[in-house]
Amino acid sequence: MDITEISSHITKPDEGAMKRCRKRWDSIAKPLHSLGKLEDLIVKIAGITGSERINLTKKALVCMCADNGVVEEGISQSGQEVTAIVSENMLNGRATSSVMCRHLGADLFAVDVGVACETSLIQKKSGFGTRNMLREPAMSREEAVSAVNAGISMAFELSRKGYCIAATGEMGIGNTATSSAVASVLLDRPAEEMTGRGAGLDDQRLRCKIQVITQAVNLHQPDRKDPLDVLSKVGGFDLAALTGFFLGGAAVRLPIVIDGFISGTAALAAMKICPDAVHYMLPSHKSKEPAAGLLLDALGLDACLDCGMSLGEGTGALMLFPLLDTALDVYEKMSTFDEINVEQYVPLS
Amino acid sequence: MDITEISSHITKPDEGAMKRCRKRWDSIAKPLHSLGKLEDLIVKIAGITGSERINLTKKALVCMCADNGVVEEGISQSGQEVTAIVSENMLNGRATSSVMCRHLGADLFAVDVGVACETSLIQKKSGFGTRNMLREPAMSREEAVSAVNAGISMAFELSRKGYCIAATGEMGIGNTATSSAVASVLLDRPAEEMTGRGAGLDDQRLRCKIQVITQAVNLHQPDRKDPLDVLSKVGGFDLAALTGFFLGGAAVRLPIVIDGFISGTAALAAMKICPDAVHYMLPSHKSKEPAAGLLLDALGLDACLDCGMSLGEGTGALMLFPLLDTALDVYEKMSTFDEINVEQYVPLS
Repeated sequence: MDITEISSHITKPDEGAMKRCRKRWDSIAKPLHSLGKLEDLIVKIAGITGSERINLTKKALVCMCADNGVVEEGISQSGQEVTAIVSENMLNGRATSSVMCRHLGADLFAVDVGVACETSLIQKKSGFGTRNMLREPAMSREEAVSAVNAGISMAFELSRKGYCIAATGEMGIGNTATSSAVASVLLDRPAEEMTGRGAGLDDQRLRCKIQVITQAVNLHQPDRKDPLDVLSKVGGFDLAALTGFFLGGAAVRLPIVIDGFISGTAALAAMKICPDAVHYMLPSHKSKEPAAGLLLDALGLDACLDCGMSLGEGTGALMLFPLLDTALDVYEKMSTFDEINVEQYVPLS
Repeated sequence: MDITEISSHITKPDEGAMKRCRKRWDSIAKPLHSLGKLEDLIVKIAGITGSERINLTKKALVCMCADNGVVEEGISQSGQEVTAIVSENMLNGRATSSVMCRHLGADLFAVDVGVACETSLIQKKSGFGTRNMLREPAMSREEAVSAVNAGISMAFELSRKGYCIAATGEMGIGNTATSSAVASVLLDRPAEEMTGRGAGLDDQRLRCKIQVITQAVNLHQPDRKDPLDVLSKVGGFDLAALTGFFLGGAAVRLPIVIDGFISGTAALAAMKICPDAVHYMLPSHKSKEPAAGLLLDALGLDACLDCGMSLGEGTGALMLFPLLDTALDVYEKMSTFDEINVEQYVPLS
């Protein structure tokens, strides 16, 4: 399965399963819809998987790791070598994401989709880092397609392995800059609005970052109607691979949790390629990046978490797992109104 | 210890422990402050307990249960008997809060501070329900003091039993109405702004609820500078007990998690009695009640969760526990910059 045929395999979620799931929620002896968005997420998962019997036991975090040529413009806090160091730390358990995965019972898949050096991650490289988008397109269209296909293949692998849900993450120095560039084109907004401090830029370097993004977009004039054109010219391998992962997840009916700004940008690209893909995405948190809210609005999604996180690696998406597990426990174990003989607790409306 | 002497036992948090906790966070190999509010909450807990070595193992939920005379005005969705039914379900494990406590490893203390009938809960009754505030003050000042003292005593009991953190909850049909009344007086805002649908009122009953609150406040003219006067005239036993619990928690240096609108109203009353008490409160979620944001603003607190929850029983506060546990695991287990030989990852600012 690749990008040329993926959209034709993405269908609407199962309305019947969603109705049965909502009916179960409404029968539980508590005020109607009183777990709010958490109930809605469980209903969404029922629609995705086609069953009101929800299983979230086997969880994954898929971290797409890649380098970005544009870092040579000084738009990021850290040197390019940090991408490989932190990515390898995901394997040896020393990255934040790996500590959290252990704590939360999720398996971490760290995928090299374009790190600038050899790594011991899962190998799905489309190149050794992208080119500097300030001078030339970050990738050829073929390279972007290859990275999208790498993401699609990961979704199929996870489905084959029996995973019930997957969080998305990334590691790639410079990838808030590429995300701002892609999001500014897809949303038709100026770079100023879409650009934040990433891992902690000061004012001067933030201005430089905005200028680099604006210039790169002006130079390549990516076609906003063609997300692959946008991803290839001003995106990154990680963004393209995440885009593919969202599309693949929709095709295999795997609930995929959006993380923050970078993952959200890829989700938007996936939705632009196939609008129905959004039905398979779960929002998690509103990150600290200034455009996080705009992105979620564009996706029509509303996050449960607002912790001001800006770490990346899928750490915000992971934080949704314990909330879903807790809500699911209520969904499965609580008594119904009939069972506890309370009829009056049902709202009249 | 009672209300007459509690304020003199509430001191400032430990700045040294907070600094050491912040230093540990800043040494961890991830972008500075990238877990956002979760880092701040761990730092706050360090200040509360006086140590940067955080222990959150032993967790409690304290649910204050009581009835409100004003329900005879038809301002709530359910009949008064539901207070006792749901409170007893906390004991037999069938309430939402008890399902969640089991799932999250917290012990549930369901306290009868004023249910209108005999119950098998922890007995700290200040009465059998309050009087109808539309006709007379809900309580005498002595009854309000008694309920506040019941809450103070619960905090001391939990501290003696070695609890590390406590979530607050309540069960009491009609208690969003009393909370709106108390909050509207304490914040000097019209009842319209402070009143929501509780467990699911329709438009007509919402208008009636607002009218009842407005009339009760007009009738009794509670003194906004005297939170005990406000609590006694238009509050409830649950609100008064929660107020005492927040004050007691501050005195014994126990971190106490605010739940939603009702718990937040009690937190505000506690802060008005003793401003330093707020340093011992942790925000959890922004509930669906329309004034939830106003209350948090008045407390100067910013919630991590925005799930649109409106269940009560401390369910929103409980949802903070897994987030804190996960953040704490990162705080304790992650490598420092020194350990992984990444110096470049430290922001320049």
